[in-house]
Amino acid sequence: MNQKTTIQFDPIGIIHSCYKEKFGIPRQPGLVKDAPATIELFPEFAKEEAVRELAGFSHIWVLFHFHQKKGEKWTPMVRPPRLGGNKKVGVFASRSPVRPNPIGLSAVELDSIETGAGKVRIHLKGIDILDQTPVLDIKPYIPYSDSIDTAIGGFATAAPESNIEVEFSDKAMDIINSHEKKLPDLKTIITQMLRNDPRPAYHPSKKETDRIFGAKLFDFDIRWKVDGSIITVVEIERY
Amino acid sequence: MNQKTTIQFDPIGIIHSCYKEKFGIPRQPGLVKDAPATIELFPEFAKEEAVRELAGFSHIWVLFHFHQKKGEKWTPMVRPPRLGGNKKVGVFASRSPVRPNPIGLSAVELDSIETGAGKVRIHLKGIDILDQTPVLDIKPYIPYSDSIDTAIGGFATAAPESNIEVEFSDKAMDIINSHEKKLPDLKTIITQMLRNDPRPAYHPSKKETDRIFGAKLFDFDIRWKVDGSIITVVEIERY
Repeated sequence: MNQKTTIQFDPIGIIHSCYKEKFGIPRQPGLVKDAPATIELFPEFAKEEAVRELAGFSHIWVLFHFHQKKGEKWTPMVRPPRLGGNKKVGVFASRSPVRPNPIGLSAVELDSIETGAGKVRIHLKGIDILDQTPVLDIKPYIPYSDSIDTAIGGFATAAPESNIEVEFSDKAMDIINSHEKKLPDLKTIITQMLRNDPRPAYHPSKKETDRIFGAKLFDFDIRWKVDGSIITVVEIERY
Repeated sequence: MNQKTTIQFDPIGIIHSCYKEKFGIPRQPGLVKDAPATIELFPEFAKEEAVRELAGFSHIWVLFHFHQKKGEKWTPMVRPPRLGGNKKVGVFASRSPVRPNPIGLSAVELDSIETGAGKVRIHLKGIDILDQTPVLDIKPYIPYSDSIDTAIGGFATAAPESNIEVEFSDKAMDIINSHEKKLPDLKTIITQMLRNDPRPAYHPSKKETDRIFGAKLFDFDIRWKVDGSIITVVEIERY
């Protein structure tokens, strides 16, 4: 076999997540701890046997296709947000979605597994993956070989810190309160998302305090503005 | 875009490793700590820029194609060697190479990166990957999101323990000594490999103490026999 041969993969399932667009998605899993998501296996793979014993693992690896980046040409160097967008590093020294083979890799917390009626739904927490993303593989997270406590993280040595405070307008709180039954964690998730300041690090809009930013989360448009280290959610609207 | 669409990937490079056949390969990375290997990027990807800053990371993720398992039909349940081969678990609760999308995932120690003359060679340590394996992607190991020290490992809670002692015949030691300059770690690597007892857990040959087992390592045929917890390397031969 020629080692350069093109390899074909068919997705095994799809992700349902609260992130309906790229803007707002945390840059690493676990940063928005309460964000819920579900992997739904496609019928061919949706067998209870295929996930037997998986529930004993606290975390799983999700390998997925960065489908939104399909067709985007990779470049040898990229600007990781962790470096303030000013410095370039090699694409293979980054987790950039635009890469020669756009395969994403996330370790995520396994919440529960629901099977029956020809369906398998794997419920997750703290994910950083866009809604409708095709899933290529699921593997158990094996602590003794995957968790390397002596590893040194190059330019990404520690989780990003945030001194941002998130406030909500009365209007925004009304919407949150009226959805308390269906989405009890909505305020927490918005807060966690915005504490990571999803704006591109090098964006000129960083200096505009009156500018309104927006992102889709669940079936809401979230709109906020930034003034120094204070982010105010001005409006939440169903779309 | 239809989320079930087949996705095509072209390998970015190939692995050169000491493991010339499946038998003998450790079941997780890091078990044979001194096993050397090199990823050689294909010309299209062999740019110094593409690996810039990667050397600052102590470990990398290698995503690869289980090419030897190509065409093998997956089954919903598999027998992981960790469970003695007696118990079946779901394919997605295992790291089995025979799976719907045969993508392998290993965290390996980065030794050094060699660039120049249109080549990029990434030298690794402690790998568990077959020689000539096509590489799909390389990502930095980011400790704060990849190393989860609270993770619980289901049925694979701890690294396999071994009480096996490895001995060498005089004949085998002659070969090892005569290659000391070129392969100073040969004895260590053979010892680490055999301490993991590469025989399939459920194999009937487990009871045959006079049976000779063999595996290809570097350009040698290694032959050994097992008696209780003593493994004796009887012969090492160039092939």
